[in-house]
Amino acid sequence: MPSITDFTCPLPRLDYDTIQLAHGSGGRLSAELIDKLFLPRFANPILNRLEDQATLQMPPGRLAMTTDSFVVSPIFFPGGDIGDLAINGTVNDLAMGGATPLYLSVAFILEEGLPIADLHRILLSMEKSAATAGIQVVTGDTKVVNKGACDQIFINTTGIGVIESGIALSAANIRPGDKIIVSGTIADHGMAILTCRENLSFHSRINSDSAALNSLVKEMLEVSKEIHALRDPTRGGLATTLNEFAASSGVGILLEEKAIPVRAEVRGACEVMGIDPLYVANEGKLVAAVPPDQAERVLNAMRCHPLGSEAQIIGTAVAEHPRLVTIKTALGAERIVAMPVGEQLPRIC
Amino acid sequence: MPSITDFTCPLPRLDYDTIQLAHGSGGRLSAELIDKLFLPRFANPILNRLEDQATLQMPPGRLAMTTDSFVVSPIFFPGGDIGDLAINGTVNDLAMGGATPLYLSVAFILEEGLPIADLHRILLSMEKSAATAGIQVVTGDTKVVNKGACDQIFINTTGIGVIESGIALSAANIRPGDKIIVSGTIADHGMAILTCRENLSFHSRINSDSAALNSLVKEMLEVSKEIHALRDPTRGGLATTLNEFAASSGVGILLEEKAIPVRAEVRGACEVMGIDPLYVANEGKLVAAVPPDQAERVLNAMRCHPLGSEAQIIGTAVAEHPRLVTIKTALGAERIVAMPVGEQLPRIC
Repeated sequence: MPSITDFTCPLPRLDYDTIQLAHGSGGRLSAELIDKLFLPRFANPILNRLEDQATLQMPPGRLAMTTDSFVVSPIFFPGGDIGDLAINGTVNDLAMGGATPLYLSVAFILEEGLPIADLHRILLSMEKSAATAGIQVVTGDTKVVNKGACDQIFINTTGIGVIESGIALSAANIRPGDKIIVSGTIADHGMAILTCRENLSFHSRINSDSAALNSLVKEMLEVSKEIHALRDPTRGGLATTLNEFAASSGVGILLEEKAIPVRAEVRGACEVMGIDPLYVANEGKLVAAVPPDQAERVLNAMRCHPLGSEAQIIGTAVAEHPRLVTIKTALGAERIVAMPVGEQLPRIC
Repeated sequence: MPSITDFTCPLPRLDYDTIQLAHGSGGRLSAELIDKLFLPRFANPILNRLEDQATLQMPPGRLAMTTDSFVVSPIFFPGGDIGDLAINGTVNDLAMGGATPLYLSVAFILEEGLPIADLHRILLSMEKSAATAGIQVVTGDTKVVNKGACDQIFINTTGIGVIESGIALSAANIRPGDKIIVSGTIADHGMAILTCRENLSFHSRINSDSAALNSLVKEMLEVSKEIHALRDPTRGGLATTLNEFAASSGVGILLEEKAIPVRAEVRGACEVMGIDPLYVANEGKLVAAVPPDQAERVLNAMRCHPLGSEAQIIGTAVAEHPRLVTIKTALGAERIVAMPVGEQLPRIC
């Protein structure tokens, strides 16, 4: 991890204090925004060329590519903001494919009137997250829409990375007997957004778990190249990811409810609001399906990493009930964990 | 160019006629949208794996990467729609770097309530454009925001391509003496949007020039690998692109007004609305800076291609007035073509 000392920076002086339509015109105000606000945060030799496309040298290996748009509301929340979410989310999608994240594009859609200070704060947060994840922003785009045509700021990030030979992660590879491991407590991000949005105050503030997982994945793959599948349970939560695992591989999955780590304050908030934490988004957690003889070794490697210190084996892939996810509750009953149908928490990421 | 026969398709039956928040939840309705609407349009072995990241085999060579978000209003306009614009715009940014476009990510931000029929129509248009350009959609993302939080639909596309050895296009390479060539009439796209938006009717309808330029660039590079720079004059129009050329290379640029092709109906609309066509966006045109001894050969190759049949040499890079773009008017006067300051036409792409 690069040493990160300081990501504060006074607000640069621009001609306007808020985003104007002309900031998206491709003209002089666009150039000012890029020169004073964007480039100082992301500067690197590739980006600095400012051509309409970045030219990249790639190491040998298969390439991974992933895209995500971020529309989270509110844009600032306990434990993060739309900026670090946009970096971490895409880094994580690359890491879940076993790829080393290398390059990122960043595209902003800004609402006319957005305070430049808010944009600057988001950019500082993106700069810090990108440095932590070791990924370079190499190309970008900015569009401005008239007031009311978007909600403050939307960010798309698209990432590419390289997959070393010998790594072949895919949900389709999961086999009966595989252990299902989660890297830590679930439902933190979704409940952070929801309690913040609803202005609910609980005894302890719930923080988003927004984090880049590529360094954790690196440790895991170093102890076992036989991990079958990795995925980050974002929208739709753990329940959705495990249903996708079951659908792609044809196995069933049996969970142990009492093994699934949930922070006390998150569990409390879920109970008050009648929400099942299995369906709540995470932004700094992963689920792994690992052959049984590799599970302990992978678990131990995870627990040695700060982002995996609370990792747990939470269940097993089974030949019974193919394509179905079930959970053995604390009381000993077994129930089906279905794919969610409706929207639980819109604009969570 | 692949043979393209039919990109019509009846509207698939979905559970709802309009976009619901749950279509973005990552749950069952998201899966229905992907399976019934998206996959039939873009299906290929890479995309069909439906992992959170695409795994790609790349041919040797440097890689080009580019991103653009599309927020055009209205989403349907004469000569195109937001869908083909989103494909062509990113294909063109790759082509301007001399890259062969290979893979594309597509990320949608949809407003709750958007008619499924509109989305389907946009997807058909994207399918056709991607096939014409010979690019594969390999990964995607869909977010849904509540009604009023975005304007119908925004699309981000990010593209990667490969640059053959021996090609090194960059605005920084432009030298005094270079001929400036434009591939055809300017200002068509911007004036198509503007007259459509303002509901103005002229004698002839103005159509957008939205088109993928990669096959034209291929022909140009086949006759000369010494082309110095290519760029598509989108937002901010020809004036902005040429000012960028001048700033990056340090040369001056002298244009011949009477050599710049403008359709009569576009010129008429510009005059009525008091708009200078030099500042109006194009979506299917390129500007090239070519060493003088190569200019005729490149021009002839362009004129043999349907998208370059009206190509013209419109000016010259000069050592006088470095970093300044000037134009010799039809009346013989010379004036400065400045970088635009304000927003002329918001949400043009």
